[in-house]
Amino acid sequence: MACVFCEIVAGTAPAIRVHEDDDFLGILDIRPFTRGHTLVVPKQHTVDLTDTPAETLAGMLAVGQRIAQATRASDLGATGNNIAINDGKSAMQTVFHIHLHVIPRRDGDKLSFAKGMLLRRDPDREGTGRILRAALSQLDTIG
Amino acid sequence: MACVFCEIVAGTAPAIRVHEDDDFLGILDIRPFTRGHTLVVPKQHTVDLTDTPAETLAGMLAVGQRIAQATRASDLGATGNNIAINDGKSAMQTVFHIHLHVIPRRDGDKLSFAKGMLLRRDPDREGTGRILRAALSQLDTIG
Repeated sequence: MACVFCEIVAGTAPAIRVHEDDDFLGILDIRPFTRGHTLVVPKQHTVDLTDTPAETLAGMLAVGQRIAQATRASDLGATGNNIAINDGKSAMQTVFHIHLHVIPRRDGDKLSFAKGMLLRRDPDREGTGRILRAALSQLDTIG
Repeated sequence: MACVFCEIVAGTAPAIRVHEDDDFLGILDIRPFTRGHTLVVPKQHTVDLTDTPAETLAGMLAVGQRIAQATRASDLGATGNNIAINDGKSAMQTVFHIHLHVIPRRDGDKLSFAKGMLLRRDPDREGTGRILRAALSQLDTIG
C-alpha cells in the first residue's frame, strides 16, 4: 500500500519543502490551519508512537523547534506555535507515517485560527515556503 | 514571581504524580480534556521553545511517548494520544514553564472529547493516577 509521505521523501509526489537533512523533511501542510503550518516527516517510515524509536522522535522535535523559531523570526509574524503529534486514528492521525505539526500562531488570532481549521487553505503556498526557507537560512547564519 | 510547576517540582504545591526521574515529572493535568490527560514537566525551569535546549525537548518527548504507550496498555482504554506543546501565549500556553501534553483518545470519542474540553474535569483523579502508574510500572517490567 502506497504511503504518500514515503512518495514525497522519494520525490515521486510533490511537496513544498522548507527543510531537508539526512533524516527529515519539513514540508508545508497541503491543508494548513494557519499560514506556515508545516509537517516534519522522518524519511524512515514508521507509523506512530508505538513503533517509532525515541531517537527519531528527538530529531523530529529538534527540527520542529527550529521551524517554530523561524516562524517567529520570519515575515510570517508568528508569536507562538502549536506543536502536535497525532498518535493513532482516534487521535485524528490521517497519514500513517509519523509526523509532527508546527502550527504558527499570532496574537489575537483565535477567530482566524478557528476559520483556518474549517477552510484549511493558503492562497500563496509558494510564497509561504519562500518566507520560511529564508527565515531558516537566516537562523543557520546566526547559529 | 512564583512558578507553579517549579513549586510542584519542589514539593511545595500538590500534584498527582504518575512519573518521576532525575529530570522530569509526569503529573495529571488538573483540568483534563480526557481521562488520563498528563503533563510532562522538566524539573529545570525554561519558558518555551525559544529557550529550552533540544536535549530537554528530546527527554520530555521520550517520557511522553512512554506515557502514551502506557495509556494504550492500561485500563484507561486509550487507542491513541494527542501530544502537544503550546509554545507561547498566542498558542494557548498558560503556564510559562515548558511542558508536554499527553491526551489519551478512544475510538469514537469525538463528542465526549469536545465535552471534555468544555468541562475539563475527572471525578476520580486519584484512581486515574493509580491506573497510569500501574501501566507504567508494567511497561518497565516488560522493557
